[in-house]
Amino acid sequence: MHTYKRRWLYAIKYDLLRGEHRKSKSALRSAVITAVFLLTTCTLMLYAFPSSLCQMEKKLRDYGKFSEPLIIAITPSYRRPTRFADMTRLANTLHLIPHLYWIVIEDGNNTVPYVEAILRRSTKPYTYIKSPTPDGYPGKGWFQRSVALQYLRNNSARLLENYLSGIVYFVDDDNAYDIRVFTDYVRNVKKLGMWAVGLAGGLPVEFPIAVNGIVIGYHAWKAKNRTFAVDMAGFAVHLDVILSSTAIIGKQCNQRLGPETCLLEDLGLTMEDIEVFGEGGEKGQQEILVWHTKTSDVNFQESQVANLPYVFETKAVHRKQNTETKSTYIPLLQKSLKRILESWRAVQF
Amino acid sequence: MHTYKRRWLYAIKYDLLRGEHRKSKSALRSAVITAVFLLTTCTLMLYAFPSSLCQMEKKLRDYGKFSEPLIIAITPSYRRPTRFADMTRLANTLHLIPHLYWIVIEDGNNTVPYVEAILRRSTKPYTYIKSPTPDGYPGKGWFQRSVALQYLRNNSARLLENYLSGIVYFVDDDNAYDIRVFTDYVRNVKKLGMWAVGLAGGLPVEFPIAVNGIVIGYHAWKAKNRTFAVDMAGFAVHLDVILSSTAIIGKQCNQRLGPETCLLEDLGLTMEDIEVFGEGGEKGQQEILVWHTKTSDVNFQESQVANLPYVFETKAVHRKQNTETKSTYIPLLQKSLKRILESWRAVQF
Repeated sequence: MHTYKRRWLYAIKYDLLRGEHRKSKSALRSAVITAVFLLTTCTLMLYAFPSSLCQMEKKLRDYGKFSEPLIIAITPSYRRPTRFADMTRLANTLHLIPHLYWIVIEDGNNTVPYVEAILRRSTKPYTYIKSPTPDGYPGKGWFQRSVALQYLRNNSARLLENYLSGIVYFVDDDNAYDIRVFTDYVRNVKKLGMWAVGLAGGLPVEFPIAVNGIVIGYHAWKAKNRTFAVDMAGFAVHLDVILSSTAIIGKQCNQRLGPETCLLEDLGLTMEDIEVFGEGGEKGQQEILVWHTKTSDVNFQESQVANLPYVFETKAVHRKQNTETKSTYIPLLQKSLKRILESWRAVQF
Repeated sequence: MHTYKRRWLYAIKYDLLRGEHRKSKSALRSAVITAVFLLTTCTLMLYAFPSSLCQMEKKLRDYGKFSEPLIIAITPSYRRPTRFADMTRLANTLHLIPHLYWIVIEDGNNTVPYVEAILRRSTKPYTYIKSPTPDGYPGKGWFQRSVALQYLRNNSARLLENYLSGIVYFVDDDNAYDIRVFTDYVRNVKKLGMWAVGLAGGLPVEFPIAVNGIVIGYHAWKAKNRTFAVDMAGFAVHLDVILSSTAIIGKQCNQRLGPETCLLEDLGLTMEDIEVFGEGGEKGQQEILVWHTKTSDVNFQESQVANLPYVFETKAVHRKQNTETKSTYIPLLQKSLKRILESWRAVQF
């Protein structure tokens, strides 16, 4: 073996490179046969079985990862007296969901240590960043959800570390969630999942109307003819859809139609992509697994809580307070008048 | 030995009962000594060491029971559009509390299967019974809490099966609970525990004012001079206190002062019995672990949801509907006018 190897080395070193014929022809023959064998093997491996190689590489890379997708919950949040209560309740619910990553975006100039403490107690891995809404954004939470989407695109590899895939679900801090919306619906979304939302948009329930699993329209409060007439709590999108697009909820989104249809259309989705979960009516009355609840507002001034020995939040202090308080006067009065009219309507003489 | 025993038997049989003196005097002496010895031993065991005997019996009886007390959560609930959402959220929170028994009393003529399904999913042992408020009860939930107290008195042995003791805590279905209110406060109550409640009674927080752990007054919205100026979510009572009294929240309780002070006074408690948990101000700002939140009301008629393929609740149908709708008109208008006035006051020109 040793002699053969040395002969072979001679063959390459002297016979081929220098063209010198000092050694026997058998050495040259051996070298050619070896080269042809190696070339054939490599070619076969690279061209004939590329898929099996890829699969092997993928299997090695994914060894030990969770096969169930990671649920990425995105929550925009802002300062208000009921916020700690709402966030605590939501944290209790999310505590129960395995394989969940929580991204919370603060609509403010600073993150709030007490909110971070709630996130820590939720026992979920989380990201908590501040991103105050810039001027001219038409809706609350729109900018924060956009920031979260961009954060996801920049950090998906780190977030997905132990997971093969992810599903993105927008979770609001005052909504009420049955844990089955995560375990039975969100976790199983392949592209775009959609389901009913209770107490949404002034209706008892909003839901996609489906025939044999194909969505043909929506039971919704406003603009039923939108491509996606759905509440933020009523859909989840596979992370791949988010990563293969740069879509965010932009300023230009139509405020009247809502940010949901704008985002989903910009993500390149169509009504054909919808998978309906918990379709109602087929097997009798269907359960609602998420409700667009609102916690009744309370209004405290900073001065009212200054000397109390407990941790609270008051209403956020707006930068342009004078302008804003004047401009909120008319809507407030309108709201009160609307309430009176509603009270009148509610009375059955 | 055998001979001695037979002699002793003879002594009793012939010498004492029949008075016959056929056998020796030594037999009589033996019998007397034995009797005296037995009598002394029994007397000593029964009178000199009764506590050690009792402890031994107690230890045997309690063998294998949990040493931490069972938390008995009492929730009055009633039909409304937001109820399923509120109960689901509360069930998610209670799911996280170990050693908890949940008693839910329905203010209605029937229990609701969907509510029972929520209780089942909470993974806690529970009792769910109906008990509609009789005429003349001044407050919502008062009668149901009383029913729960009576239920407890009749069933405490069964409920406590695996526990040495219990703590009773009134948990409302729309409040927000940090789990530490259960694990750090309620679980450690010895007689009457009390703590701060956020967003209670129109204030940012209500709390007992304590000096060196002794309550000297209350930071409360109304009637601060009550013996117990505390929200239902702000106290818990040891089960022994409940069991050694027949107190309930009665019709005669002063509606203006609230049912809390009425019940606690009737239970024979005084301000000296209060143990304060999470006392604020001593170590900087203290956290609030429970909030008296309210879910914003929505109002659907039965006819609006009749043909929808989902499970809802609408407002409870009152028996005397005509009278009641007419009588609610004035308060509704008053509420709207109050809101307008508040809006005006909120504006800073």
